[in-house]
Amino acid sequence: MSTSTGAVAIEKQMVPENEVQQVELLTGVEDLHGGITLDMNKAMDSEAFASSLRASISPWKQQGKRAVWIKVPTELVNLVEPAVKEGFRYHHAEPDYLMLVNWISNSTNTLPQNASHRVGIGAFVVNDKREVLVVQERNGIFKGTGVWKFPTGVVNEGEDIYMAAIREVKEETGIDTEFVEILAFRQSHKSFFTKSDLFFVCMLRPHSFDIQKQDIEIAAAQWMSLEDYAAQAFIQKHSVFSSVAQVCITKLEKDYAGFSPVPTTTSSGKTSYLYFNSGDLNQL
Amino acid sequence: MSTSTGAVAIEKQMVPENEVQQVELLTGVEDLHGGITLDMNKAMDSEAFASSLRASISPWKQQGKRAVWIKVPTELVNLVEPAVKEGFRYHHAEPDYLMLVNWISNSTNTLPQNASHRVGIGAFVVNDKREVLVVQERNGIFKGTGVWKFPTGVVNEGEDIYMAAIREVKEETGIDTEFVEILAFRQSHKSFFTKSDLFFVCMLRPHSFDIQKQDIEIAAAQWMSLEDYAAQAFIQKHSVFSSVAQVCITKLEKDYAGFSPVPTTTSSGKTSYLYFNSGDLNQL
Repeated sequence: MSTSTGAVAIEKQMVPENEVQQVELLTGVEDLHGGITLDMNKAMDSEAFASSLRASISPWKQQGKRAVWIKVPTELVNLVEPAVKEGFRYHHAEPDYLMLVNWISNSTNTLPQNASHRVGIGAFVVNDKREVLVVQERNGIFKGTGVWKFPTGVVNEGEDIYMAAIREVKEETGIDTEFVEILAFRQSHKSFFTKSDLFFVCMLRPHSFDIQKQDIEIAAAQWMSLEDYAAQAFIQKHSVFSSVAQVCITKLEKDYAGFSPVPTTTSSGKTSYLYFNSGDLNQL
Repeated sequence: MSTSTGAVAIEKQMVPENEVQQVELLTGVEDLHGGITLDMNKAMDSEAFASSLRASISPWKQQGKRAVWIKVPTELVNLVEPAVKEGFRYHHAEPDYLMLVNWISNSTNTLPQNASHRVGIGAFVVNDKREVLVVQERNGIFKGTGVWKFPTGVVNEGEDIYMAAIREVKEETGIDTEFVEILAFRQSHKSFFTKSDLFFVCMLRPHSFDIQKQDIEIAAAQWMSLEDYAAQAFIQKHSVFSSVAQVCITKLEKDYAGFSPVPTTTSSGKTSYLYFNSGDLNQL
Protein backbone atom coordinates (compact mmCIF):
# COMPACT_ATOMS: atom_id res chain seq x y z
CA MET A 1 0.00 0.00 0.00
CA SER A 2 1.00 3.59 -0.38
CA THR A 3 2.47 5.42 2.55
CA SER A 4 4.08 8.77 2.83
CA THR A 5 7.16 7.26 4.46
CA GLY A 6 9.93 5.84 2.35
CA ALA A 7 8.69 7.73 -0.68
CA VAL A 8 11.10 7.83 -3.60
CA ALA A 9 10.45 10.11 -6.55
CA ILE A 10 10.88 8.40 -9.89
CA GLU A 11 12.46 10.35 -12.71
CA LYS A 12 10.32 11.24 -15.68
CA GLN A 13 11.26 8.93 -18.55
CA MET A 14 10.60 8.89 -22.26
CA VAL A 15 10.25 5.76 -24.32
CA PRO A 16 13.06 5.30 -26.90
CA GLU A 17 13.07 7.77 -29.77
CA ASN A 18 12.74 5.05 -32.34
CA GLU A 19 9.19 4.30 -31.21
CA VAL A 20 6.60 5.34 -33.77
CA GLN A 21 4.91 7.72 -31.35
CA GLN A 22 6.42 9.29 -28.29
CA VAL A 23 4.22 8.74 -25.27
CA GLU A 24 5.12 10.45 -22.04
CA LEU A 25 5.53 7.96 -19.22
CA LEU A 26 3.83 8.80 -15.95
CA THR A 27 5.82 9.44 -12.81
CA GLY A 28 4.87 8.25 -9.37
CA VAL A 29 6.02 7.79 -5.85
CA GLU A 30 7.10 4.35 -4.62
CA ASP A 31 6.09 2.91 -1.30
CA LEU A 32 7.53 0.13 0.84
CA HIS A 33 4.91 -2.41 -0.23
CA GLY A 34 5.76 -2.65 -3.94
CA GLY A 35 3.26 0.03 -4.83
CA ILE A 36 3.53 3.18 -6.88
CA THR A 37 1.20 6.16 -6.47
CA LEU A 38 0.31 8.70 -9.15
CA ASP A 39 -0.89 11.88 -7.49
CA MET A 40 -2.62 13.55 -10.43
CA ASN A 41 -2.45 17.31 -10.03
CA LYS A 42 -2.23 18.77 -13.52
CA ALA A 43 -4.97 18.95 -16.13
CA MET A 44 -4.42 16.30 -18.81
CA ASP A 45 -6.32 15.21 -21.88
CA SER A 46 -8.21 11.95 -21.26
CA GLU A 47 -6.79 10.18 -24.31
CA ALA A 48 -3.22 11.29 -23.67
CA PHE A 49 -3.59 10.05 -20.09
CA ALA A 50 -4.90 6.66 -21.30
CA SER A 51 -1.92 6.26 -23.64
CA SER A 52 0.59 7.29 -21.00
CA LEU A 53 -0.95 5.00 -18.42
CA ARG A 54 -0.89 2.03 -20.81
CA ALA A 55 2.75 2.72 -21.74
CA SER A 56 3.81 3.14 -18.11
CA ILE A 57 2.36 -0.07 -16.71
CA SER A 58 4.61 -2.37 -18.71
CA PRO A 59 7.90 -1.05 -17.24
CA TRP A 60 6.37 -0.99 -13.76
CA LYS A 61 5.51 -4.67 -14.15
CA GLN A 62 9.07 -5.37 -15.27
CA GLN A 63 10.36 -3.52 -12.20
CA GLY A 64 8.32 -5.89 -10.05
CA LYS A 65 5.79 -3.31 -8.91
CA ARG A 66 2.69 -4.97 -7.47
CA ALA A 67 0.11 -2.21 -7.29
CA VAL A 68 -0.48 1.12 -9.03
CA TRP A 69 -2.54 3.74 -7.19
CA ILE A 70 -4.03 6.80 -8.91
CA LYS A 71 -5.30 9.67 -6.80
CA VAL A 72 -7.64 11.80 -8.89
CA PRO A 73 -8.84 15.11 -7.43
CA THR A 74 -12.41 16.13 -8.22
CA GLU A 75 -11.31 18.76 -10.73
CA LEU A 76 -9.52 16.12 -12.85
CA VAL A 77 -12.58 13.84 -12.97
CA ASN A 78 -12.02 13.35 -16.72
CA LEU A 79 -9.16 10.96 -15.84
CA VAL A 80 -11.43 8.52 -14.00
CA GLU A 81 -13.02 6.90 -17.05
CA PRO A 82 -9.73 6.19 -18.88
CA ALA A 83 -8.26 4.69 -15.69
CA VAL A 84 -11.24 2.35 -15.25
CA LYS A 85 -10.98 1.36 -18.92
CA GLU A 86 -7.31 0.44 -18.32
CA GLY A 87 -8.38 -1.98 -15.60
CA PHE A 88 -8.26 0.21 -12.50
CA ARG A 89 -10.92 -0.17 -9.80
CA TYR A 90 -12.10 2.23 -7.10
CA HIS A 91 -10.42 1.83 -3.72
CA HIS A 92 -11.91 4.66 -1.69
CA ALA A 93 -13.17 8.20 -2.11
CA GLU A 94 -13.39 11.36 -0.08
CA PRO A 95 -15.34 14.49 -1.11
CA ASP A 96 -12.33 15.95 -2.93
CA TYR A 97 -10.65 12.93 -4.48
CA LEU A 98 -11.08 9.39 -5.75
CA MET A 99 -8.39 6.73 -5.26
CA LEU A 100 -8.17 4.02 -7.90
CA VAL A 101 -5.93 0.99 -7.78
CA ASN A 102 -4.75 -1.78 -10.08
CA TRP A 103 -3.05 -4.93 -8.78
CA ILE A 104 -0.58 -5.60 -11.62
CA SER A 105 1.30 -8.52 -10.05
CA ASN A 106 0.67 -12.25 -10.39
CA SER A 107 1.26 -12.65 -6.64
CA THR A 108 -1.56 -12.84 -4.10
CA ASN A 109 -3.48 -9.57 -3.90
CA THR A 110 -2.63 -7.94 -0.56
CA LEU A 111 -4.29 -4.58 -1.13
CA PRO A 112 -5.43 -3.01 2.16
CA GLN A 113 -9.16 -3.12 2.74
CA ASN A 114 -11.15 0.07 2.74
CA ALA A 115 -12.33 1.59 6.04
CA SER A 116 -15.34 -0.39 7.24
CA HIS A 117 -16.51 1.36 10.40
CA ARG A 118 -17.64 4.74 11.56
CA VAL A 119 -16.81 5.44 15.21
CA GLY A 120 -18.96 7.43 17.63
CA ILE A 121 -19.03 8.31 21.29
CA GLY A 122 -21.70 8.84 23.91
CA ALA A 123 -20.68 10.86 26.98
CA PHE A 124 -21.79 9.91 30.50
CA VAL A 125 -20.96 13.13 32.36
CA VAL A 126 -22.01 12.90 36.00
CA ASN A 127 -21.58 15.44 38.81
CA ASP A 128 -21.29 14.94 42.58
CA LYS A 129 -25.08 15.15 42.98
CA ARG A 130 -25.60 12.04 40.80
CA GLU A 131 -26.87 14.32 38.05
CA VAL A 132 -26.07 13.43 34.45
CA LEU A 133 -25.63 15.88 31.57
CA VAL A 134 -28.34 15.25 28.96
CA VAL A 135 -29.49 16.86 25.73
CA GLN A 136 -32.38 16.85 23.28
CA GLU A 137 -31.32 16.97 19.63
CA ARG A 138 -32.90 19.06 16.86
CA ASN A 139 -32.40 16.33 14.23
CA GLY A 140 -32.00 12.59 14.00
CA ILE A 141 -34.10 9.73 15.30
CA PHE A 142 -34.71 11.39 18.70
CA LYS A 143 -36.08 14.63 17.16
CA GLY A 144 -39.34 15.64 18.79
CA THR A 145 -39.50 12.53 20.99
CA GLY A 146 -38.77 14.37 24.24
CA VAL A 147 -36.10 11.78 25.06
CA TRP A 148 -33.18 13.10 27.11
CA LYS A 149 -29.97 11.47 25.93
CA PHE A 150 -26.23 11.59 26.53
CA PRO A 151 -24.31 13.99 24.28
CA THR A 152 -23.07 11.97 21.29
CA GLY A 153 -20.87 12.56 18.29
CA VAL A 154 -18.65 11.14 15.60
CA VAL A 155 -14.95 10.45 16.16
CA ASN A 156 -12.99 12.05 13.34
CA GLU A 157 -10.26 10.39 11.32
CA GLY A 158 -7.06 10.84 13.27
CA GLU A 159 -8.85 11.73 16.51
CA ASP A 160 -8.45 9.75 19.73
CA ILE A 161 -11.71 8.42 21.14
CA TYR A 162 -11.20 9.99 24.56
CA MET A 163 -10.44 13.37 22.98
CA ALA A 164 -13.54 13.15 20.81
CA ALA A 165 -15.68 12.63 23.93
CA ILE A 166 -14.20 15.72 25.62
CA ARG A 167 -14.62 17.77 22.42
CA GLU A 168 -18.23 16.76 21.77
CA VAL A 169 -19.35 17.54 25.34
CA LYS A 170 -17.68 20.95 25.11
CA GLU A 171 -19.19 21.69 21.69
CA GLU A 172 -22.74 20.64 22.53
CA THR A 173 -23.01 21.89 26.12
CA GLY A 174 -20.02 24.13 26.91
CA ILE A 175 -19.07 21.85 29.81
CA ASP A 176 -15.35 21.20 30.46
CA THR A 177 -14.59 17.61 31.37
CA GLU A 178 -11.86 15.18 32.26
CA PHE A 179 -11.93 11.71 30.72
CA VAL A 180 -12.42 8.83 33.16
CA GLU A 181 -13.05 5.54 31.33
CA ILE A 182 -14.73 3.73 28.50
CA LEU A 183 -17.55 1.83 30.21
CA ALA A 184 -18.88 -0.15 27.25
CA PHE A 185 -19.07 -0.15 23.49
CA ARG A 186 -21.58 -1.30 20.93
CA GLN A 187 -20.99 -2.59 17.40
CA SER A 188 -23.83 -2.30 14.90
CA HIS A 189 -24.09 -3.12 11.24
CA LYS A 190 -25.52 -1.56 8.08
CA SER A 191 -25.72 1.70 9.96
CA PHE A 192 -25.10 3.60 6.73
CA PHE A 193 -24.96 1.84 3.37
CA THR A 194 -23.04 -1.39 4.00
CA LYS A 195 -20.81 0.09 6.71
CA SER A 196 -20.66 -0.83 10.38
CA ASP A 197 -20.51 1.39 13.44
CA LEU A 198 -18.66 1.29 16.77
CA PHE A 199 -20.08 3.42 19.55
CA PHE A 200 -18.10 3.97 22.77
CA VAL A 201 -19.81 4.92 26.03
CA CYS A 202 -17.35 7.23 27.79
CA MET A 203 -17.49 8.40 31.40
CA LEU A 204 -16.27 11.95 32.01
CA ARG A 205 -15.96 14.07 35.15
CA PRO A 206 -17.24 17.65 34.75
CA HIS A 207 -14.96 20.55 35.66
CA SER A 208 -17.61 23.19 34.99
CA PHE A 209 -21.38 23.15 35.51
CA ASP A 210 -22.91 26.12 33.70
CA ILE A 211 -24.45 24.81 30.47
CA GLN A 212 -23.98 26.87 27.28
CA LYS A 213 -25.75 24.80 24.67
CA GLN A 214 -24.87 24.81 21.00
CA ASP A 215 -28.04 25.98 19.23
CA ILE A 216 -27.69 24.43 15.77
CA GLU A 217 -27.81 20.77 16.82
CA ILE A 218 -29.10 20.91 20.40
CA ALA A 219 -32.69 21.85 21.27
CA ALA A 220 -32.22 21.60 25.04
CA ALA A 221 -29.62 20.57 27.61
CA GLN A 222 -29.79 20.09 31.38
CA TRP A 223 -28.48 18.22 34.41
CA MET A 224 -30.91 15.40 35.29
CA SER A 225 -30.88 12.82 38.06
CA LEU A 226 -29.40 9.54 36.85
CA GLU A 227 -32.49 7.69 38.10
CA ASP A 228 -34.84 9.96 36.09
CA TYR A 229 -32.65 9.46 33.02
CA ALA A 230 -32.74 5.68 33.37
CA ALA A 231 -36.48 5.63 34.11
CA GLN A 232 -37.43 7.18 30.74
CA ALA A 233 -39.76 4.83 28.84
CA PHE A 234 -37.54 4.94 25.75
CA ILE A 235 -34.47 3.91 27.73
CA GLN A 236 -36.32 1.08 29.47
CA LYS A 237 -37.83 -0.18 26.23
CA HIS A 238 -34.63 -0.88 24.29
CA SER A 239 -32.12 -3.16 25.96
CA VAL A 240 -29.10 -1.45 24.44
CA PHE A 241 -30.05 1.75 26.32
CA SER A 242 -31.21 0.09 29.53
CA SER A 243 -28.00 -2.00 29.67
CA VAL A 244 -25.86 1.11 29.28
CA ALA A 245 -27.88 2.87 32.01
CA GLN A 246 -27.33 -0.17 34.25
CA VAL A 247 -23.59 -0.03 33.61
CA CYS A 248 -23.56 3.69 34.51
CA ILE A 249 -25.52 3.09 37.74
CA THR A 250 -23.17 0.22 38.67
CA LYS A 251 -20.19 2.48 38.02
CA LEU A 252 -21.51 4.99 40.58
CA GLU A 253 -22.64 2.49 43.21
CA LYS A 254 -20.18 -0.41 43.03
CA ASP A 255 -16.77 -1.23 41.66
CA TYR A 256 -17.24 -1.24 37.91
CA ALA A 257 -13.96 -1.22 35.99
CA GLY A 258 -13.97 0.08 32.43
CA PHE A 259 -11.05 0.64 30.06
CA SER A 260 -8.67 3.60 30.46
CA PRO A 261 -6.50 5.08 27.70
CA VAL A 262 -2.76 4.57 28.21
CA PRO A 263 -0.24 5.93 25.69
CA THR A 264 2.02 3.23 24.22
CA THR A 265 4.69 3.11 21.54
CA THR A 266 4.13 1.00 18.45
CA SER A 267 6.74 -0.80 16.35
CA SER A 268 6.80 2.15 13.93
CA GLY A 269 7.63 4.50 16.80
CA LYS A 270 4.25 6.21 16.84
CA THR A 271 2.23 6.80 20.01
CA SER A 272 -1.03 4.89 20.11
CA TYR A 273 -3.50 4.72 22.97
CA LEU A 274 -4.13 1.27 24.38
CA TYR A 275 -7.43 1.06 26.30
CA PHE A 276 -7.64 -1.58 29.03
CA ASN A 277 -8.72 -2.30 32.61
CA SER A 278 -5.81 -0.49 34.22
CA GLY A 279 -7.16 -0.98 37.74
CA ASP A 280 -6.99 -4.75 37.42
CA LEU A 281 -3.59 -4.59 35.72
CA ASN A 282 -2.10 -2.57 38.56
CA GLN A 283 -2.78 -5.37 41.03
CA LEU A 284 0.50 -6.95 39.88
CA MET B 1 -28.93 9.73 4.46
CA SER B 2 -30.04 6.95 2.19
CA THR B 3 -31.17 3.71 3.73
CA SER B 4 -32.83 0.66 2.28
CA THR B 5 -35.67 0.91 4.79
CA GLY B 6 -38.63 3.11 4.05
CA ALA B 7 -37.77 3.18 0.37
CA VAL B 8 -40.48 4.51 -1.92
CA ALA B 9 -40.15 4.16 -5.67
CA ILE B 10 -40.89 7.35 -7.52
CA GLU B 11 -42.77 7.09 -10.78
CA LYS B 12 -40.96 8.00 -13.97
CA GLN B 13 -42.13 11.43 -15.10
CA MET B 14 -41.86 13.41 -18.29
CA VAL B 15 -41.71 17.17 -18.45
CA PRO B 16 -44.79 18.75 -20.14
CA GLU B 17 -45.09 18.18 -23.88
CA ASN B 18 -45.03 21.88 -24.65
CA GLU B 19 -41.40 22.11 -23.58
CA VAL B 20 -39.06 22.71 -26.47
CA GLN B 21 -37.12 19.55 -25.83
CA GLN B 22 -38.30 16.53 -23.92
CA VAL B 23 -35.81 15.53 -21.27
CA GLU B 24 -36.43 12.35 -19.38
CA LEU B 25 -36.50 12.96 -15.64
CA LEU B 26 -34.53 10.54 -13.50
CA THR B 27 -36.24 8.28 -11.02
CA GLY B 28 -34.93 7.48 -7.59
CA VAL B 29 -35.73 5.94 -4.28
CA GLU B 30 -36.62 8.15 -1.32
CA ASP B 31 -35.26 7.63 2.15
CA LEU B 32 -36.43 8.79 5.57
CA HIS B 33 -33.86 11.58 5.79
CA GLY B 34 -35.03 13.74 2.89
CA GLY B 35 -32.68 12.02 0.49
CA ILE B 36 -33.23 10.46 -2.90
CA THR B 37 -30.95 7.79 -4.38
CA LEU B 38 -30.39 7.11 -8.07
CA ASP B 39 -29.13 3.57 -8.49
CA MET B 40 -27.73 3.78 -12.02
CA ASN B 41 -27.96 0.40 -13.68
CA LYS B 42 -28.54 1.02 -17.39
CA ALA B 43 -26.08 2.33 -19.91
CA MET B 44 -26.79 5.99 -20.67
CA ASP B 45 -25.16 8.61 -22.84
CA SER B 46 -23.14 11.09 -20.76
CA GLU B 47 -24.80 14.18 -22.24
CA ALA B 48 -28.31 12.79 -21.95
CA PHE B 49 -27.57 11.94 -18.33
CA ALA B 50 -26.30 15.47 -17.66
CA SER B 51 -29.48 16.98 -19.14
CA SER B 52 -31.75 14.64 -17.23
CA LEU B 53 -29.90 15.24 -13.97
CA ARG B 54 -30.13 19.00 -14.40
CA ALA B 55 -33.86 18.81 -15.21
CA SER B 56 -34.58 16.49 -12.28
CA ILE B 57 -32.92 18.50 -9.53
CA SER B 58 -35.29 21.45 -9.75
CA PRO B 59 -38.47 19.43 -8.95
CA TRP B 60 -36.61 17.58 -6.18
CA LYS B 61 -35.69 20.91 -4.62
CA GLN B 62 -39.34 21.99 -4.87
CA GLN B 63 -40.38 18.76 -3.16
CA GLY B 64 -38.07 19.67 -0.27
CA LYS B 65 -35.51 16.95 -0.93
CA ARG B 66 -32.26 17.69 0.87
CA ALA B 67 -29.73 15.32 -0.69
CA VAL B 68 -29.39 13.47 -3.97
CA TRP B 69 -27.24 10.34 -4.03
CA ILE B 70 -26.00 8.71 -7.25
CA LYS B 71 -24.61 5.19 -7.12
CA VAL B 72 -22.54 4.58 -10.24
CA PRO B 73 -21.31 1.04 -10.91
CA THR B 74 -17.85 0.71 -12.45
CA GLU B 75 -19.24 -0.21 -15.87
CA LEU B 76 -21.15 3.11 -16.06
CA VAL B 77 -18.06 5.18 -15.23
CA ASN B 78 -18.95 7.59 -18.05
CA LEU B 79 -21.65 9.04 -15.76
CA VAL B 80 -19.15 10.19 -13.12
CA GLU B 81 -17.81 13.22 -14.96
CA PRO B 82 -21.25 14.72 -15.81
CA ALA B 83 -22.37 14.23 -12.20
CA VAL B 84 -19.31 16.06 -10.86
CA LYS B 85 -19.87 18.86 -13.36
CA GLU B 86 -23.45 19.21 -12.05
CA GLY B 87 -22.06 19.82 -8.56
CA PHE B 88 -21.95 16.31 -7.12
CA ARG B 89 -19.04 15.26 -4.90
CA TYR B 90 -17.67 11.82 -4.02
CA HIS B 91 -19.02 10.31 -0.81
CA HIS B 92 -17.43 6.87 -0.78
CA ALA B 93 -16.31 4.14 -3.15
CA GLU B 94 -16.00 0.38 -3.15
CA PRO B 95 -14.22 -1.64 -5.87
CA ASP B 96 -17.42 -1.99 -7.91
CA TYR B 97 -19.15 1.35 -7.43
CA LEU B 98 -18.76 5.02 -6.65
CA MET B 99 -21.31 6.94 -4.55
CA LEU B 100 -21.70 10.62 -5.29
CA VAL B 101 -23.84 13.07 -3.37
CA ASN B 102 -25.16 16.60 -3.71
CA TRP B 103 -26.65 18.51 -0.77
CA ILE B 104 -29.37 20.52 -2.57
CA SER B 105 -31.03 22.10 0.46
CA ASN B 106 -30.32 25.43 2.14
CA SER B 107 -30.57 23.75 5.55
CA THR B 108 -27.51 22.64 7.53
CA ASN B 109 -25.65 19.82 5.77
CA THR B 110 -26.23 16.64 7.78
CA LEU B 111 -24.71 14.15 5.34
CA PRO B 112 -23.34 11.10 7.14
CA GLN B 113 -19.56 10.99 7.36
CA ASN B 114 -17.66 8.34 5.47
CA ALA B 115 -16.24 5.34 7.32
CA SER B 116 -13.08 6.44 9.12
CA HIS B 117 -11.69 3.29 10.73
CA ARG B 118 -10.55 -0.15 9.80
CA VAL B 119 -11.07 -2.71 12.57
CA GLY B 120 -8.77 -5.62 13.33
CA ILE B 121 -8.41 -8.34 15.93
CA GLY B 122 -5.54 -10.12 17.62
CA ALA B 123 -6.35 -13.49 19.20
CA PHE B 124 -4.92 -14.55 22.58
CA VAL B 125 -5.66 -18.29 22.50
CA VAL B 126 -4.31 -20.02 25.59
CA ASN B 127 -4.58 -23.67 26.61
CA ASP B 128 -4.53 -25.29 30.09
CA LYS B 129 -0.72 -25.59 29.97
CA ARG B 130 -0.32 -21.78 29.75
CA GLU B 131 0.67 -22.19 26.11
CA VAL B 132 -0.41 -19.53 23.65
CA LEU B 133 -1.16 -20.07 19.95
CA VAL B 134 1.33 -18.08 17.86
CA VAL B 135 2.16 -17.68 14.19
CA GLN B 136 4.82 -16.28 11.88
CA GLU B 137 3.46 -14.46 8.84
CA ARG B 138 4.74 -14.70 5.27
CA ASN B 139 4.08 -10.98 4.57
CA GLY B 140 3.78 -7.72 6.41
CA ILE B 141 6.04 -5.96 8.87
CA PHE B 142 6.91 -9.16 10.75
CA LYS B 143 8.05 -11.04 7.63
CA GLY B 144 11.42 -12.69 8.18
CA THR B 145 11.84 -11.23 11.68
CA GLY B 146 11.34 -14.54 13.48
CA VAL B 147 8.82 -12.86 15.77
CA TRP B 148 6.05 -15.14 17.04
CA LYS B 149 2.80 -13.21 17.21
CA PHE B 150 -0.87 -13.73 17.95
CA PRO B 151 -3.05 -14.60 14.95
CA THR B 152 -4.48 -11.33 13.63
CA GLY B 153 -6.93 -10.28 10.98
CA VAL B 154 -9.34 -7.69 9.67
CA VAL B 155 -12.97 -7.50 10.83
CA ASN B 156 -15.20 -7.39 7.77
CA GLU B 157 -18.05 -4.97 7.22
CA GLY B 158 -21.10 -6.47 8.89
CA GLU B 159 -19.04 -8.91 10.97
CA ASP B 160 -19.13 -8.98 14.78
CA ILE B 161 -15.72 -8.53 16.39
CA TYR B 162 -15.96 -11.70 18.46
CA MET B 163 -16.96 -13.74 15.39
CA ALA B 164 -14.04 -12.30 13.41
CA ALA B 165 -11.64 -13.48 16.13
CA ILE B 166 -13.04 -17.03 16.02
CA ARG B 167 -12.94 -17.03 12.20
CA GLU B 168 -9.38 -15.74 11.88
CA VAL B 169 -7.99 -18.28 14.36
CA LYS B 170 -9.75 -21.08 12.50
CA GLU B 171 -8.56 -19.83 9.09
CA GLU B 172 -4.93 -19.31 10.06
CA THR B 173 -4.37 -22.28 12.38
CA GLY B 174 -7.34 -24.67 12.10
CA ILE B 175 -8.00 -24.34 15.84
CA ASP B 176 -11.63 -24.23 17.05
CA THR B 177 -12.20 -21.69 19.80
CA GLU B 178 -14.78 -20.19 22.09
CA PHE B 179 -14.77 -16.43 22.64
CA VAL B 180 -13.99 -15.29 26.20
CA GLU B 181 -13.44 -11.53 26.37
CA ILE B 182 -11.96 -8.44 24.83
CA LEU B 183 -8.96 -7.69 27.04
CA ALA B 184 -7.84 -4.39 25.50
CA PHE B 185 -7.97 -2.37 22.32
CA ARG B 186 -5.66 0.02 20.56
CA GLN B 187 -6.52 2.99 18.35
CA SER B 188 -3.91 4.16 15.85
CA HIS B 189 -3.95 6.83 13.18
CA LYS B 190 -2.85 7.21 9.56
CA SER B 191 -2.57 3.46 9.38
CA PHE B 192 -3.51 3.57 5.69
CA PHE B 193 -3.91 6.86 3.83
CA THR B 194 -5.68 9.20 6.26
CA LYS B 195 -7.71 6.45 7.94
CA SER B 196 -7.50 5.25 11.53
CA ASP B 197 -7.44 1.74 12.93
CA LEU B 198 -8.99 0.00 15.93
CA PHE B 199 -7.39 -3.26 17.00
CA PHE B 200 -9.10 -5.48 19.59
CA VAL B 201 -7.14 -8.00 21.67
CA CYS B 202 -9.50 -10.95 22.12
CA MET B 203 -9.08 -13.87 24.53
CA LEU B 204 -10.33 -17.22 23.24
CA ARG B 205 -10.43 -20.70 24.75
CA PRO B 206 -9.28 -23.47 22.40
CA HIS B 207 -11.55 -26.48 21.80
CA SER B 208 -9.04 -28.27 19.60
CA PHE B 209 -5.24 -28.43 19.74
CA ASP B 210 -3.94 -29.94 16.49
CA ILE B 211 -2.65 -27.05 14.35
CA GLN B 212 -3.43 -27.11 10.61
CA LYS B 213 -1.86 -23.90 9.37
CA GLN B 214 -3.04 -21.96 6.37
CA ASP B 215 -0.07 -21.93 3.97
CA ILE B 216 -0.68 -18.77 1.93
CA GLU B 217 -0.37 -16.24 4.77
CA ILE B 218 1.21 -18.26 7.58
CA ALA B 219 4.85 -19.42 7.50
CA ALA B 220 4.71 -21.24 10.85
CA ALA B 221 2.37 -21.82 13.77
CA GLN B 222 2.86 -23.41 17.19
CA TRP B 223 1.87 -23.50 20.84
CA MET B 224 4.43 -21.54 22.88
CA SER B 225 4.71 -20.84 26.61
CA LEU B 226 3.22 -17.46 27.46
CA GLU B 227 6.45 -16.50 29.24
CA ASP B 228 8.54 -17.28 26.13
CA TYR B 229 6.12 -15.27 24.01
CA ALA B 230 6.33 -12.26 26.32
CA ALA B 231 10.14 -12.53 26.65
CA GLN B 232 10.75 -12.00 22.90
CA ALA B 233 12.96 -8.95 22.38
CA PHE B 234 10.50 -7.44 19.90
CA ILE B 235 7.62 -7.69 22.38
CA GLN B 236 9.68 -6.20 25.19
CA LYS B 237 10.95 -3.37 23.01
CA HIS B 238 7.61 -1.81 22.04
CA SER B 239 5.31 -0.85 24.88
CA VAL B 240 2.12 -1.54 22.94
CA PHE B 241 3.17 -5.23 22.73
CA SER B 242 4.63 -5.51 26.22
CA SER B 243 1.51 -3.91 27.73
CA VAL B 244 -0.74 -6.38 25.92
CA ALA B 245 1.46 -9.27 27.10
CA GLN B 246 1.19 -7.91 30.65
CA VAL B 247 -2.61 -7.79 30.36
CA CYS B 248 -2.65 -11.41 29.14
CA ILE B 249 -0.42 -12.59 32.00
CA THR B 250 -2.59 -10.71 34.51
CA LYS B 251 -5.68 -12.34 33.03
CA LEU B 252 -4.22 -15.80 33.71
CA GLU B 253 -2.79 -15.08 37.17
CA LYS B 254 -5.18 -12.60 38.78
CA ASP B 255 -8.69 -11.23 38.37
CA TYR B 256 -8.55 -9.23 35.18
CA ALA B 257 -11.96 -8.29 33.82
CA GLY B 258 -12.29 -7.50 30.15
CA PHE B 259 -15.41 -6.75 28.11
CA SER B 260 -17.83 -9.53 27.06
CA PRO B 261 -20.27 -9.36 24.14
CA VAL B 262 -23.93 -9.30 25.18
CA PRO B 263 -26.68 -9.16 22.54
CA THR B 264 -29.00 -6.16 22.95
CA THR B 265 -31.89 -4.70 20.99
CA THR B 266 -31.54 -1.24 19.47
CA SER B 267 -34.28 1.33 18.89
CA SER B 268 -34.62 0.13 15.29
CA GLY B 269 -35.26 -3.42 16.51
CA LYS B 270 -31.91 -4.79 15.35
CA THR B 271 -29.66 -6.93 17.51
CA SER B 272 -26.34 -5.28 18.35
CA TYR B 273 -23.65 -6.61 20.61
CA LEU B 274 -22.81 -4.44 23.60
CA TYR B 275 -19.35 -5.19 25.04
CA PHE B 276 -18.84 -4.43 28.73
CA ASN B 277 -17.45 -5.71 32.02
CA SER B 278 -20.26 -8.16 32.67
CA GLY B 279 -18.58 -9.60 35.77
CA ASP B 280 -18.69 -6.25 37.53
CA LEU B 281 -22.24 -5.56 36.30
CA ASN B 282 -23.52 -8.82 37.75
CA GLN B 283 -22.56 -7.74 41.27
CA LEU B 284 -25.87 -5.87 41.41
